[in-house]
Amino acid sequence: MNALEELTESFSRLPGIGKKSAARIAIHILKTDESFAQNLAQQLLTLHERIHPCPICGAYTEKDTCDICTDPLRDRSLLCVVEQPQDVQTIEASREFHGLFHVLGGVIAPLEGIGPEQLSFNSLIERVKNENIQEVIIATNPTIEGDTTALYAQKLLSELHVNVSRLASGLPVGGDLEYADKLTLQRSFRGRISLGS
Amino acid sequence: MNALEELTESFSRLPGIGKKSAARIAIHILKTDESFAQNLAQQLLTLHERIHPCPICGAYTEKDTCDICTDPLRDRSLLCVVEQPQDVQTIEASREFHGLFHVLGGVIAPLEGIGPEQLSFNSLIERVKNENIQEVIIATNPTIEGDTTALYAQKLLSELHVNVSRLASGLPVGGDLEYADKLTLQRSFRGRISLGS
Repeated sequence: MNALEELTESFSRLPGIGKKSAARIAIHILKTDESFAQNLAQQLLTLHERIHPCPICGAYTEKDTCDICTDPLRDRSLLCVVEQPQDVQTIEASREFHGLFHVLGGVIAPLEGIGPEQLSFNSLIERVKNENIQEVIIATNPTIEGDTTALYAQKLLSELHVNVSRLASGLPVGGDLEYADKLTLQRSFRGRISLGS
Repeated sequence: MNALEELTESFSRLPGIGKKSAARIAIHILKTDESFAQNLAQQLLTLHERIHPCPICGAYTEKDTCDICTDPLRDRSLLCVVEQPQDVQTIEASREFHGLFHVLGGVIAPLEGIGPEQLSFNSLIERVKNENIQEVIIATNPTIEGDTTALYAQKLLSELHVNVSRLASGLPVGGDLEYADKLTLQRSFRGRISLGS
């Protein structure tokens, strides 16, 4: 394999990049100014060293404690529980939530051998006990595993005198009834919102 | 920007990778063993240094002269003219052609200010004059620019007593008449092949 084929092979191992796209990307990089390749290489070399999970919430950060956990303007009575560190960025981008986060690090998935003890439920309980949290919003994905995990979290938290809620599930904005799947439609009926009488 | 955002930004500048895919790729790399990132970085750092165009045909190679130009088993009476270095790899993958290549380095595109003098027509003429070439197969893309370039090459070569041909254009194998565009259908009619009478 020459250098171009080696690079193509590496790119084709990334998610969502097939063999043809990988070849196109490798050639694009070869044709682009060398500084782009050097810069990308530098970013790759330092990525693991610079980024680590926040010891409090589990979100990705470059600092000792992440920007959200240390921000005095965040609402410290609200805690949003998510599956993955990247979910924090997604929710932050919506600008809808101004509380704190807690990353579980995955979902309960018995078939893959992942039980509650591998997720950060212990630290979740500790935080709810010790910090002045009024409401826990469970934002796991609307999947079977996400639902199971939400249910488990709800049970754990029910003993702690804290409000627990879950993100609404239903029709996506801009979507079309025609293209909604059965389960989504069921949930949008069950979670319907009264517009007054 | 933190390291993850910087890497996402770089990936989103590659062809065919949007912002969401770039974020997904960056997180995948962060979660994957560090050796993958280190290896990819090394490949990027050495790419431009290792790969250069073959001085004879213009294909990408790591050697002084490319493997095809130096292969004693190739048919040296056949020369395939392509637009880009990567076209050589595409044709090689088909295992249909066993002659030599000549990379033009692009197509004649007056609107982009690319005339014949910016392409390697001079060395093409020299090769046809000095090497024992019997047939030149023009394999530029079936686009307006590719057609113009093929026509120009044909004119240049017409004075040199060499057979000139062009790759057939028509319906792609496995395709469907219903989805063929008008121009492709026109070409497949004009280039129809007699099955006997």
